[in-house]
Amino acid sequence: MKKEILEFRGGAALVCAASAVGKYEHEGPLGDCFDLHDSTDKFGMNTWERAESEMQRLAFNTALAKASANEREVEALFAGDLLNQCVGSAYGLLDFDIPYFGLYGACSTAAESIMLASVFVSAGYISTAAAVTSSHFCSAERQYRTPLEYGAQRSPTAQWTVTGAGAFIIRSEGRVRVVEAMPGIVVEKGINDASNMGAAMAPAAASTILRYFSVSGRSPEDFDGIYTGDLGFEGGSILCELLLAEGLDIRAIYNDCGMMIYSREKQDMHAGGSGCGCSAVVLASHLLPRLETGALRRILFIGTGAMMSPSSIQQGEAIPAVAHLVCLCNEKYRF
Amino acid sequence: MKKEILEFRGGAALVCAASAVGKYEHEGPLGDCFDLHDSTDKFGMNTWERAESEMQRLAFNTALAKASANEREVEALFAGDLLNQCVGSAYGLLDFDIPYFGLYGACSTAAESIMLASVFVSAGYISTAAAVTSSHFCSAERQYRTPLEYGAQRSPTAQWTVTGAGAFIIRSEGRVRVVEAMPGIVVEKGINDASNMGAAMAPAAASTILRYFSVSGRSPEDFDGIYTGDLGFEGGSILCELLLAEGLDIRAIYNDCGMMIYSREKQDMHAGGSGCGCSAVVLASHLLPRLETGALRRILFIGTGAMMSPSSIQQGEAIPAVAHLVCLCNEKYRF
Repeated sequence: MKKEILEFRGGAALVCAASAVGKYEHEGPLGDCFDLHDSTDKFGMNTWERAESEMQRLAFNTALAKASANEREVEALFAGDLLNQCVGSAYGLLDFDIPYFGLYGACSTAAESIMLASVFVSAGYISTAAAVTSSHFCSAERQYRTPLEYGAQRSPTAQWTVTGAGAFIIRSEGRVRVVEAMPGIVVEKGINDASNMGAAMAPAAASTILRYFSVSGRSPEDFDGIYTGDLGFEGGSILCELLLAEGLDIRAIYNDCGMMIYSREKQDMHAGGSGCGCSAVVLASHLLPRLETGALRRILFIGTGAMMSPSSIQQGEAIPAVAHLVCLCNEKYRF
Repeated sequence: MKKEILEFRGGAALVCAASAVGKYEHEGPLGDCFDLHDSTDKFGMNTWERAESEMQRLAFNTALAKASANEREVEALFAGDLLNQCVGSAYGLLDFDIPYFGLYGACSTAAESIMLASVFVSAGYISTAAAVTSSHFCSAERQYRTPLEYGAQRSPTAQWTVTGAGAFIIRSEGRVRVVEAMPGIVVEKGINDASNMGAAMAPAAASTILRYFSVSGRSPEDFDGIYTGDLGFEGGSILCELLLAEGLDIRAIYNDCGMMIYSREKQDMHAGGSGCGCSAVVLASHLLPRLETGALRRILFIGTGAMMSPSSIQQGEAIPAVAHLVCLCNEKYRF
């Protein structure tokens, strides 16, 4: 086994996925891809937190239906979100009688959950696992920044928390293989501006990408796309610069889920999207269908998380970040 | 593979552990067991959050030293705590250049982290993993309840958050084997009193224990002890009643880490200890040494977590809970 790379030799595949999103995500350039949306962002609930939980429930239920799977077949849930104590997941998945692993990786949680589910499935511990993550603009905004009613002006480098939940069903066989993965190391490079999380997370993404290419011996030419989630426009350009300085040019195939989900021209989202739900819904409903058809043969999906809290920012701490990498291949093109 | 029980056939063992605790834990009946303590609870830091992070760093460093291990040998960290966005772990383990999986399972995180580390090691993904968890009374109190200066009166059913961090080194071979594990299912039985988390968590513990004995075919006679962490006196007695109603009597060998860590006579901790750090330090420094000598041959260690947040309580939600079970055996007495 190559050190630091998890190889899923026993087999791991994303067999199905589903997404639920809010108004702005539905109005964005990928809007037609998503399975469910609610233009009120409330999903029939009377608090934003309940709305976020409901999105998770709906996304997971839809993924189960697409996989023609019964709740009983799923032997483990790997789930997380951005809310304090991860209540989006704990309440959202409470209806399901399935063993539950709670995760916290900030916006990297989608990649982290897929990685852990793939470990369990590939090693034969279980046959079917699910990975579910979410974020909600309104629940995140009042928790991390200010009450919505305050109407605070946003910084140009600020990202917009995506209202969305993504759910993935993982089994050992399927059209889209999780071939290998590299868990991230937490890095902190002195950025302490909570309105510029892209800058805080870009070094973590660079660290994982450089380690991956170094250890695996692969190169960007082996992939049709390298997608981070979610550095946004600010962090994405910093990442490309950091990698160029190390002699690695990924610009031709690079994109970021936070740059893809909103229209920069028509929607005023500043530096792009962010949140556990952003990379989850872009992967579930935009990238995965292209991997299934072979339009994308092989991609790297890199979840990036800023691991600070409002308290740590108030206490003057810099922002630690982590980036988890997952290599996904159409089964015909796997390594 | 038996459904729902993770069997670590490839081998998983707790080869070393270490703990760091605060003043009251050191003054308690297990006080002499713990590796490090600071009677100021500050560990040389100027905020409670930094103190909690520093405890994690110290506990992990001490565990590494006991294992005569180098940081480079540890291929993955599984870590979590109670603070918003799990900053205790993200900052506490930032110094280490090791892939990091962030977890959130409330007080069940110690068991969750040991379970996940054992999966990785037993399946051969990595050779050495570490599980690190913490809680701190002062950082938890102001986050979950009221500022310390407010001096709020505590309910008789309230538990006292333990100031402590525990770290475990997991490899495939060792004197104390992680034989099998059962991840918990989130359950919610209508308890919405945040001052009585024992009552909220007891049904989750009962659910996992009943499932475990039912699926494994084992019985309480197979074990020298069944330890929950942390139901406290209130939750512990409810658990025994719930199990008795199902025909299972574990009282002769039952104890709870939250009942063990403080003296009920000499220390005014109401319903006992709680927090990610409680079960971690009791396992690391009290139970594990007894498993190593064979004084305890086989035990069940059941981490119990209440998955609510202050917001969810304010919004009137009941408290969901989860209980993760790990079966630990001295290598001479493993199943």
